Amino acid sequence: MIRRLLIANRGEIAVRILRACKEMGIETVVVYSSADKESLAVQLADQAVCIGPAMAKESYLNMHMILQAACSTGCDAIHPGYGFLSENAKFARLVQECDMIFVGPSPRLIDLMGDKTQARKRMKEAGVPVVEGCEDSLTSLKQARSMADSIGYPVIIKARHGGGGRGMRIVYQEDQLENAFIEAKQEAKACFENDEVYMERYVQNPKHIEVQLLGDHYGHVIHLYERDCSFQRKNQKMIEEAPCSILKEENRQRLLQSAVNAAKSIGYDSVGTMEFLMDSQGRFYFMEMNTRIQVEHPVTEAITGIDLIKWQIRVAAGQKLTIQQEDVHCNGYAMECRINAEDVAHDFAPNPGPIQFMHTPGGFGVRVDTAVYNGSVISPYYDSMILKLIVFAPTRLECIKKMRAALEETIIDGVKTNIEFNYLALYQKEFIEGSHHIGYAPILLERLKENGQFI
Amino acid sequence: MIRRLLIANRGEIAVRILRACKEMGIETVVVYSSADKESLAVQLADQAVCIGPAMAKESYLNMHMILQAACSTGCDAIHPGYGFLSENAKFARLVQECDMIFVGPSPRLIDLMGDKTQARKRMKEAGVPVVEGCEDSLTSLKQARSMADSIGYPVIIKARHGGGGRGMRIVYQEDQLENAFIEAKQEAKACFENDEVYMERYVQNPKHIEVQLLGDHYGHVIHLYERDCSFQRKNQKMIEEAPCSILKEENRQRLLQSAVNAAKSIGYDSVGTMEFLMDSQGRFYFMEMNTRIQVEHPVTEAITGIDLIKWQIRVAAGQKLTIQQEDVHCNGYAMECRINAEDVAHDFAPNPGPIQFMHTPGGFGVRVDTAVYNGSVISPYYDSMILKLIVFAPTRLECIKKMRAALEETIIDGVKTNIEFNYLALYQKEFIEGSHHIGYAPILLERLKENGQFI
Repeated sequence: MIRRLLIANRGEIAVRILRACKEMGIETVVVYSSADKESLAVQLADQAVCIGPAMAKESYLNMHMILQAACSTGCDAIHPGYGFLSENAKFARLVQECDMIFVGPSPRLIDLMGDKTQARKRMKEAGVPVVEGCEDSLTSLKQARSMADSIGYPVIIKARHGGGGRGMRIVYQEDQLENAFIEAKQEAKACFENDEVYMERYVQNPKHIEVQLLGDHYGHVIHLYERDCSFQRKNQKMIEEAPCSILKEENRQRLLQSAVNAAKSIGYDSVGTMEFLMDSQGRFYFMEMNTRIQVEHPVTEAITGIDLIKWQIRVAAGQKLTIQQEDVHCNGYAMECRINAEDVAHDFAPNPGPIQFMHTPGGFGVRVDTAVYNGSVISPYYDSMILKLIVFAPTRLECIKKMRAALEETIIDGVKTNIEFNYLALYQKEFIEGSHHIGYAPILLERLKENGQFI
Repeated sequence: MIRRLLIANRGEIAVRILRACKEMGIETVVVYSSADKESLAVQLADQAVCIGPAMAKESYLNMHMILQAACSTGCDAIHPGYGFLSENAKFARLVQECDMIFVGPSPRLIDLMGDKTQARKRMKEAGVPVVEGCEDSLTSLKQARSMADSIGYPVIIKARHGGGGRGMRIVYQEDQLENAFIEAKQEAKACFENDEVYMERYVQNPKHIEVQLLGDHYGHVIHLYERDCSFQRKNQKMIEEAPCSILKEENRQRLLQSAVNAAKSIGYDSVGTMEFLMDSQGRFYFMEMNTRIQVEHPVTEAITGIDLIKWQIRVAAGQKLTIQQEDVHCNGYAMECRINAEDVAHDFAPNPGPIQFMHTPGGFGVRVDTAVYNGSVISPYYDSMILKLIVFAPTRLECIKKMRAALEETIIDGVKTNIEFNYLALYQKEFIEGSHHIGYAPILLERLKENGQFI
């Protein structure tokens, strides 16, 4: 088993991993940038090592510094969290070359799923429904044009080695294609150091449904039900739920089973998430697979009672996954709101700054995950999430009511937040019905602006 | 259903009830003393009414003022919480006479269980094991002496209309009897305005095991498993757990069933708790029944997923209890630590004062119930509890580890607390085994003092 683990991340996920380690009797080392020297993770960890200045490129993305910190403190494992180096196969390989455990899937799986056209191909072969699109990168504008003609507009151009909503362009008609093609390539190059792009049919107003998977090194893979993450802004999730309330049981079982089968077919050996789009007819299309723990994992923990981080660490250390599929039950309903330091009125622009006063809710069925405390500062260098508020109740309606009450209790002074926007969403007909699609949050904001709010 | 409910209490239980009401769509009115004018409950409630000065006798025990507040704000129900007027049958009757719902059992049940000798008798008739003792009040020292002789020393003298550990004296040998008899009567008179006392055999070093019951107005009663509350100081619980780890399944079922049968036999119609002592041979003895919600109810909520406050309100409003016994499952293990403002080194003396900085833990399986916030004050007028920390995990050992980690994260500056004492308890052999009895905490404190701690 792992004796000492380095956490190559920051914020709430660093604290989350730290807690799991404490409970498992694993010593913790956190790395931090100079901007994070007073962070909660630094204060809670057994050891903390500064790895560079605030800019992520020079600290949380600096593989060399992180590996050096791990070696010099005698760590035998590195947990990458989410974001930063969590889906970097090169980093995973370097960790293994340093004789340490990378807490995540085998590097070949990160490579496979990181190459979006290859992932599409493998998933298609494994029987997972994939939206029409190209099998390889687009080599020219001419090829893009003929591909779009054969698929039919609208189409979407995506970075082959991308993810997280960057390097993407939607094309509604032919005359937009040239600009979109050029821009997507430029953004892909800037974000992922690779300008290859590909094309798919654009599914309009779908729901975002994802399946939580958990596998070990011995070929055993289970699902932990699905999440509905359709409440999004700027391709970033804001409210996530588990399970998906409007999914028919028959479709759910088919979705979950096909995700498990596909994960088995590639020998998936860690926690991971298969993301799907569901169109208005209830048809599913594979979007991408995230080969890491996700921000929204607590809703799945709430409904199943299974600690995903602990299992991620155990299977990485070579332990067998001892949970059988029939032991995984959905015991209720869970919902998460991400509370961000952002200015909703101004296109959700980040609003970093010092937290002058913070009061978080508690009580039955309420979970708060945060690295922020009274007096700490939301840094402009990293993402603007302040806390995750998770509620759990027997039904979705009770969840919504619990979340409303919890948001009413939450006080954050010093920065602008999306608390009110989340709160108002919980009173909308579309949200209460569960019919909201990934384009819904911006529509809601427009509607609220027309009523004089958020201006 | 109830439209507007008055909360006749303060602190964390007022907030707990308030949250349940918000989620149920019930408006809330809280009453408060002048000492609590900035309390969290006052800030969260729809309305707040000041009912008097700090002294409880003039505010939270002032029936007239509370009823006036309820009537003038148009409430149709009153929730008494725990302590204060929660087990006062006269108050419950007055509430009903004002055409309001008392959120608790019928007044006749409060009367019946409040009279400890009568309660013993009824429980005995219902087949519940009761320790040897007298059937009626002791009328003279002479009678006390002959009763003690027939029972055999040690015996315990208790207030007939008492509870909560007050008006009690243990008598180990005959020459202590006279003083104990006189003192118990005096304390009973002072605490409960009634000096009647009775006598029982004193069970040495037992465990405190209690059964959570829930009944409705239609004769339906279920149990929600048992709690082990053996970690106590000065007859006050400090760490509570559910279920009891050292109870054999056969004994558990017998205990739970006899508690349900006894509750049915008296027509019990609310939440309530039957408290038992378990001796070192595993024999049970009925101690008393609490006809109210208890401080430690969250551990039962954690293992069963059932919201006790919501059900208490529903059944009080005349709704049928729709949960069948076979639907109640024990889904894991839960533990609660009460964090008090107290000086452990000086006999756990209350240590009120301003909270200069507070940081509470969070994450998977961690629940915090508190009415304290950064900058609020622990009042010398009321009990010294700052917060309840509840953890939930698949096994007791995981609970202990989670609680240790959660206590490590908890920061309370400004007052002395029992955090460290709780923390050290979680590392003791006796506690880890689950064999600790109600006399264990003082023994542990002595042991720690011998090692130079808490002096």
